[in-house]
Amino acid sequence: MVTIKDIANKLGIAVSTVSKGLNNASDISEEMRQLVLDTAIEMGYTSKKMKDSGNRKVCILIENMDYENIDQFGYEIIVGFKLAAARRKWDVHVVPTNLNMQTEEKYDTYMLRNNFSGAFLLGFTLHDDWVKQLNKTNFPTVLLDNYIERNPHVGYVGTDNYEGIDLAVNHLCKLGHKKIAFLNGSKNSMVSEQRRQAFVNSMIKHGLVPEEELIQYGYYVPDCAKDHVPSFLKKGATAIMCASDLIATGVMTEVSKHGLKIPDDISIVGFDDLPIASQLSPALTTIRQDRSDLGKSAFLLLDGLVHGVSTSKLLLRAKLITRESSGSAKY
Amino acid sequence: MVTIKDIANKLGIAVSTVSKGLNNASDISEEMRQLVLDTAIEMGYTSKKMKDSGNRKVCILIENMDYENIDQFGYEIIVGFKLAAARRKWDVHVVPTNLNMQTEEKYDTYMLRNNFSGAFLLGFTLHDDWVKQLNKTNFPTVLLDNYIERNPHVGYVGTDNYEGIDLAVNHLCKLGHKKIAFLNGSKNSMVSEQRRQAFVNSMIKHGLVPEEELIQYGYYVPDCAKDHVPSFLKKGATAIMCASDLIATGVMTEVSKHGLKIPDDISIVGFDDLPIASQLSPALTTIRQDRSDLGKSAFLLLDGLVHGVSTSKLLLRAKLITRESSGSAKY
Repeated sequence: MVTIKDIANKLGIAVSTVSKGLNNASDISEEMRQLVLDTAIEMGYTSKKMKDSGNRKVCILIENMDYENIDQFGYEIIVGFKLAAARRKWDVHVVPTNLNMQTEEKYDTYMLRNNFSGAFLLGFTLHDDWVKQLNKTNFPTVLLDNYIERNPHVGYVGTDNYEGIDLAVNHLCKLGHKKIAFLNGSKNSMVSEQRRQAFVNSMIKHGLVPEEELIQYGYYVPDCAKDHVPSFLKKGATAIMCASDLIATGVMTEVSKHGLKIPDDISIVGFDDLPIASQLSPALTTIRQDRSDLGKSAFLLLDGLVHGVSTSKLLLRAKLITRESSGSAKY
Repeated sequence: MVTIKDIANKLGIAVSTVSKGLNNASDISEEMRQLVLDTAIEMGYTSKKMKDSGNRKVCILIENMDYENIDQFGYEIIVGFKLAAARRKWDVHVVPTNLNMQTEEKYDTYMLRNNFSGAFLLGFTLHDDWVKQLNKTNFPTVLLDNYIERNPHVGYVGTDNYEGIDLAVNHLCKLGHKKIAFLNGSKNSMVSEQRRQAFVNSMIKHGLVPEEELIQYGYYVPDCAKDHVPSFLKKGATAIMCASDLIATGVMTEVSKHGLKIPDDISIVGFDDLPIASQLSPALTTIRQDRSDLGKSAFLLLDGLVHGVSTSKLLLRAKLITRESSGSAKY
């Protein structure tokens, strides 16, 4: 086990200076602090606090995801994680991040400097600096909806997108729909890519034709509907599968503008089952992601990583929630 | 919650008869017992014993897998599961099964009659009767290396085969091998199919050509080597990737018969890292499946299913263990 003394010896400086560097003291230079932190990380140093299983300190890092209100995607995930962590008396810090934070400091440095012994990352994409650094981190880290190859310290938790999309296509197919459009989330997201592939696979499996013009990337916001719904309708879509409930709300608005009735003229299916889904008019048929279980599972995975169990992926089942926005195909 | 009285009412028989049927009493007819059990399962009945979290009784069902000695594949999986279960005071029964058992009684009936509140299935294939029945079971069930679609009560635990095979191909590629053969396990196994696909993907990713004649299905026994190794050698393979350490032992024997030296003339890589791998001469380079962690993870997954957390898949990282059987390519 690497000690403060080892770091001091390697750098040829006093133990007290190393200690100051690790503990964020103000009376050493910024350069020296950085050198101490870099060396500590390189040598695989972990502080006593980080190893203390009695009161383990971990963080939930959040980038670009709403979580503060119960009707937002991240809320229940965080609650689920915290509930599971509380039973083990882990100290959980919820930290909203931003691009600046990621540019200013490396992931490992941030973790070490704050004595975090593990992290759960929400809303990050593969383009984020900290995610790019995860292929080499030694800090136990769980990512929602993103996968890092080969690093045994990093795990991925998410919902089974293949099964989720397949449930929706199967539902619409049974209702007689053949021309099914798919309005996806952002390009360059692992989840969007999985859902696109799942949609194509599932259409073929159900004997339907996945038409390229009916399969489009948008963004995970309602507003993206207006760019794609008009052409979906022009091309004769009788149902629109959406990659999130928020996208579905935009699609519902757009479809209404065209004077169409849901589900009489067109069926709409969402993804997530946010609280809003059941309150829409008509109530939204959707694919449920159990966000509380996602949080609990993320904790289990992180707990495993902390104890040397290298889980690469943990996927939860998706569930079809049938409400009023899907009905028999007209044609 | 369905009670014994509900079952009695539905069948129009006495509560005592239902009780006898559920508890395997000898003084009712076999037909009546079957009727009671079938009705109980259909109505979703669970006994008090099954719900008693204080002393939950679960089983590990084993079909066609060696597990009694420490050098066999199933041994550490079972130990890992039992260790994790012991902490929660679960009562774990290890039950070797056979085709007769599966033909004589349905899976659900077997579980209910024995008051098991969950099961971990090892060594089963998708062709087994009990596995075929899993798409409808309500009993929390975890399968090693097999996946059941859509049923929220059933989960799959295994090692990440894609990453495992990719690690091996990457290792051989770095050593300069281009003509890499792959001797797979049995056809009609999900794991074999994943590994075949992973091998093809990984060869392409590394700029190598996956030649059809160098990719063959065998069986998970050493003996299958003699059917394929001669033609691999004739076609100029400089390395043979094997889907298990046992297959690799057969390949080593066969290669030696042809007067070739390992690794000077040909490299061999196994899969599993059974205890035998390090004892072979030369010691076998292989892809490690952490069997103890597989058992522990199976427990975690089953514990989740029992408490309503529907995990569909949990995959552990594979790890490359470099020993003496792999070396630089000759050509």
